[in-house]
Amino acid sequence: MIRLSVLYPTGEGAVFDHDYYRNHHVPLALRTWGLESAEIDKGIDGPYVAAVHFRFESAEAMTASMSAEGSRQVSADVANYTNIVPILQISEIV
Amino acid sequence: MIRLSVLYPTGEGAVFDHDYYRNHHVPLALRTWGLESAEIDKGIDGPYVAAVHFRFESAEAMTASMSAEGSRQVSADVANYTNIVPILQISEIV
Repeated sequence: MIRLSVLYPTGEGAVFDHDYYRNHHVPLALRTWGLESAEIDKGIDGPYVAAVHFRFESAEAMTASMSAEGSRQVSADVANYTNIVPILQISEIV
Repeated sequence: MIRLSVLYPTGEGAVFDHDYYRNHHVPLALRTWGLESAEIDKGIDGPYVAAVHFRFESAEAMTASMSAEGSRQVSADVANYTNIVPILQISEIV
């Protein structure tokens, strides 16, 4: 099982709309990529103001999902809730 | 629900024993803190070579667990699998 974590670092001038993220952006990503659920984090303490964790059956499934039609709209939607450039972490869940 | 993520950044000279981490250290932390399970990540791509995610019912429960007797042994055990100083992220799961 593969975890894709998208991490949003805090920083001066960083803006992040948690409600839009939860109610619009993550559901859009799930629909686009054919996933059932994801886990959304709202940062309390630490370097990240927010994060989301998606799971994929395999690295191949992740690549296939993310090249789905509509992925460009998912990327374009990022500007609607944040000015932060996210960090991607891909891991195997062991 | 609170997530405590412990993130191990990659870097020059960084050492990390994934087997020891999975088979010894994380089980020790779970026993010490009275938790049933955690999710362990082995980094494939991104800034972290490894991570673990613990869940607690509340911030108070997390604080209580981590001040449990034995937490000092958990910290002391870190030197047995890595020379990386981990980053802690505490988040609310929304």
